[in-house]
Amino acid sequence: MEQAGDHERIIRQPRMSSWRPVSADSAYRELLRLHRERALIESCAALLEWDAETYLPPGGVELRADQQAMLARLEHERATDPRIEDLLAEAEGAPQGEVAAANLRELRREHDRARATPASLVEALARETTLAQGAWEAARERGDAAGYLPLLDRVVSLTRSHADCLRGGGSRYDACLDQWEPGLTAGALDAMLIPLRARLAELADRAAGGPDLFDRPVPVEVQRVLVTAVLEELGFDLHGGRLDEAAHPSTVRMGPGDVRLTTRFIADRPLRGLFSSLHELGHGLYDQNLPAAHFGTPVGEIGSLGLHESQARLIENLVGRRRAFWHWFLPRLAAAAPAYDGLGLDDAMRAVHRVQRSALRNGSDEITYDLHIAIRVDLERALLADDLAVADLPAAWDDAYARDLVRPQAVRDGFLQDSHWAAGMFGYFPTYTLGNLIAAQLFRAAPDIDDDLARGSIAPLAAWLREQVHRHGGLLPSAAIVRRATGAPLSIDAQLSHLETRYLVPYSRP
Amino acid sequence: MEQAGDHERIIRQPRMSSWRPVSADSAYRELLRLHRERALIESCAALLEWDAETYLPPGGVELRADQQAMLARLEHERATDPRIEDLLAEAEGAPQGEVAAANLRELRREHDRARATPASLVEALARETTLAQGAWEAARERGDAAGYLPLLDRVVSLTRSHADCLRGGGSRYDACLDQWEPGLTAGALDAMLIPLRARLAELADRAAGGPDLFDRPVPVEVQRVLVTAVLEELGFDLHGGRLDEAAHPSTVRMGPGDVRLTTRFIADRPLRGLFSSLHELGHGLYDQNLPAAHFGTPVGEIGSLGLHESQARLIENLVGRRRAFWHWFLPRLAAAAPAYDGLGLDDAMRAVHRVQRSALRNGSDEITYDLHIAIRVDLERALLADDLAVADLPAAWDDAYARDLVRPQAVRDGFLQDSHWAAGMFGYFPTYTLGNLIAAQLFRAAPDIDDDLARGSIAPLAAWLREQVHRHGGLLPSAAIVRRATGAPLSIDAQLSHLETRYLVPYSRP
Repeated sequence: MEQAGDHERIIRQPRMSSWRPVSADSAYRELLRLHRERALIESCAALLEWDAETYLPPGGVELRADQQAMLARLEHERATDPRIEDLLAEAEGAPQGEVAAANLRELRREHDRARATPASLVEALARETTLAQGAWEAARERGDAAGYLPLLDRVVSLTRSHADCLRGGGSRYDACLDQWEPGLTAGALDAMLIPLRARLAELADRAAGGPDLFDRPVPVEVQRVLVTAVLEELGFDLHGGRLDEAAHPSTVRMGPGDVRLTTRFIADRPLRGLFSSLHELGHGLYDQNLPAAHFGTPVGEIGSLGLHESQARLIENLVGRRRAFWHWFLPRLAAAAPAYDGLGLDDAMRAVHRVQRSALRNGSDEITYDLHIAIRVDLERALLADDLAVADLPAAWDDAYARDLVRPQAVRDGFLQDSHWAAGMFGYFPTYTLGNLIAAQLFRAAPDIDDDLARGSIAPLAAWLREQVHRHGGLLPSAAIVRRATGAPLSIDAQLSHLETRYLVPYSRP
Repeated sequence: MEQAGDHERIIRQPRMSSWRPVSADSAYRELLRLHRERALIESCAALLEWDAETYLPPGGVELRADQQAMLARLEHERATDPRIEDLLAEAEGAPQGEVAAANLRELRREHDRARATPASLVEALARETTLAQGAWEAARERGDAAGYLPLLDRVVSLTRSHADCLRGGGSRYDACLDQWEPGLTAGALDAMLIPLRARLAELADRAAGGPDLFDRPVPVEVQRVLVTAVLEELGFDLHGGRLDEAAHPSTVRMGPGDVRLTTRFIADRPLRGLFSSLHELGHGLYDQNLPAAHFGTPVGEIGSLGLHESQARLIENLVGRRRAFWHWFLPRLAAAAPAYDGLGLDDAMRAVHRVQRSALRNGSDEITYDLHIAIRVDLERALLADDLAVADLPAAWDDAYARDLVRPQAVRDGFLQDSHWAAGMFGYFPTYTLGNLIAAQLFRAAPDIDDDLARGSIAPLAAWLREQVHRHGGLLPSAAIVRRATGAPLSIDAQLSHLETRYLVPYSRP
């Protein structure tokens, strides 16, 4: 821990009953103590969220909403503790080392955001998003959105209010983007998304096709055993983590020693469970490698969701669709599921790289994936800007899909396919596209892994990612991490080059 | 909600910055609001505890201890809120209805207990019991107590300190008993336990024997499906609950709509999973029938663990070992597990009523069960009174078992068999014996169920229990509930009479 100067001075604590002397160093330490308590509250909320996605009985949803609202309020009380302003001023005024500077930068950012948001809004968001997610799951099961739309409407209204609290001179959407990817603006996003979208649409036409050879069912129990073994062999630590099943796959980090992946196995679509699990493995490796000694402080957390997503995309697509991986995996699949005995590697590769405009984001191919995202970005921008009402969302979704991909045949395959908006995660989808771009740029700079991968190991790649990305936690901004690791600022070039090599020159593809 | 009088007066809030007028009614409502917040914190802690028993990865135990310590501190801060004393004084001073009187009585009791306990002790107990439970589980798996004893020693030390805070003029053990069974003292316990113990030892000799016909393995997956169906048919609501597996079976109520049972299936001992699940079903029915409208207030909670245990014992033993139950269940068992095809009802009944002095409490018969408890009561009294050191506990345990039951052959079958002390639950074991006594007395007064039970229904019994016991929540003391339901104060007579009828007259046994 750095020494931030040991000069003492008297600071004012206007809403406290007494004055007391603090030094910059003790102010910094007190800030970290307060933040660690917030982190513990958040880690309880994370467990409650994981439980809601996996094991919560349906009758417990309302109680869960009350629990989450209470934890959100307790966390917000600490984020807006009147002492923080003075402690920050005191700590910021002294010279700082690299760790303290990064921590203080993020503490300032969080404090300013928290102070701008009324506690009642924080509580209402926690409650309504828990209820909306329960309603989303029920609506998706029934294939009927009617009961869910009013709850989503409340979440959208609250999100608009929240963005109004935070946006300052910018747009509501800028405020939402900044929440997940600090510093990202709609303008910067457009600068990448507009040319990317045009090139992807063109690529999707040129690369369309490929056989569907993975339509033979594999029992869910078989997939579960096979995929769990794959994750463990690729380095996921089950002593400090779990793999469970949920309607919407995700990775939840409670803290050091407790990182939980969820996935979804569908008997008829065995590739879905595999790729979704590899995706969460990428998240999980990042979470398991965060610096445990800094747990509870900003430096111990991830700083950018785009960077986090890049790790998932890298394992899912760059590794998981690679020939060397399938050289290793295909015999295991055939051993576990006799229906795949006899499937050749070349055929498997053509099927793994099948390109198809589809109504569903999950399970879509590498090329059309970001076209799915672009539609969501358009719609959520319109929702936030009051240019689209929630009641009109289902039709707007279907029309956008009909224009850019393919019209959904059922509401379950339309806007009900994602739970993000129910969870209040507006401005989150762009981090998926950022993740794809960063993944390709990182993978191009990473050591060659084919010899290891063909034996079922990603150890050298994992070590490189740990060194270049994971271990930094929140110490460096994601742009700095990408530039240091790859020697260049982030652009769309590596991803487009990767897709062109893989999909337009199929017989030479790695 | 009763009106508690609407006269206003000024009360002093010495540790607050201002005075404000409150009425007895608004004081009462504020007390309930504060208590509901505590209940929500406790319900989060309950989920964390359930998760620790079911799905927590081993690497997450230390983080879990920190989370539980923080929640315990937040809960204790609220229990000792300086406003409560004045609010209580104000509310207690006015005329009250039945609900308010019961709530205020319990709020007063909890507040006095909480104020007597330093926050640091509450936090330390939460942390050390979480760590000790993790160490207990590891020690039990390894069959080696060495790493666990120092952690148990810390829990015992902290429990002694805690009891010293609470005992006033009584003994430490009285203070522990009162925590689980309000008003119970070691003297009152002895008055029942001493004669009961003598009669049980005699009965155990006279009834000893019976064939072990349930030693043919049933795969765990088969048991899981079979037992889940039984619980559901007997009335457990899976919309508002779950059944999972854990090393130590238990029932955890998060609140309305979320009651979770855990059980343990052992392939070689299929009766164990059945009876442990029926036991938890008894707890679960009580928890699911508590008055939801009073959730978060004392009236909405159970007031006595002995009464709670009675519900579990009643379903496990009085119902689950009854001939009519087996008339219904045995064909189902045989259909699910062909190894039991051909086992006759009379033989099954003799095996279900097998009596044997054993080293293990779990799975022990109805007669020797309370002899297991009596040993634990002796040992925990000695531990608390400083008459026994934790280091000497393993040997003292084995010697007591050698004297009263049978000497354990392995430490796993000795004092490592129970997690209660690791969890800091001293004075809890007597509620098991109370539960047996209350169960027998209630069952004797309940409507006859054999016709229904032979068809797999306990509906009339469940309705009677809901009416006589469950719906009252914490409104009435357990002694009053027992007296109202059975027409007599609690005694050991009904249990002894039940055991004599069932075990000494086997050919007439119901």
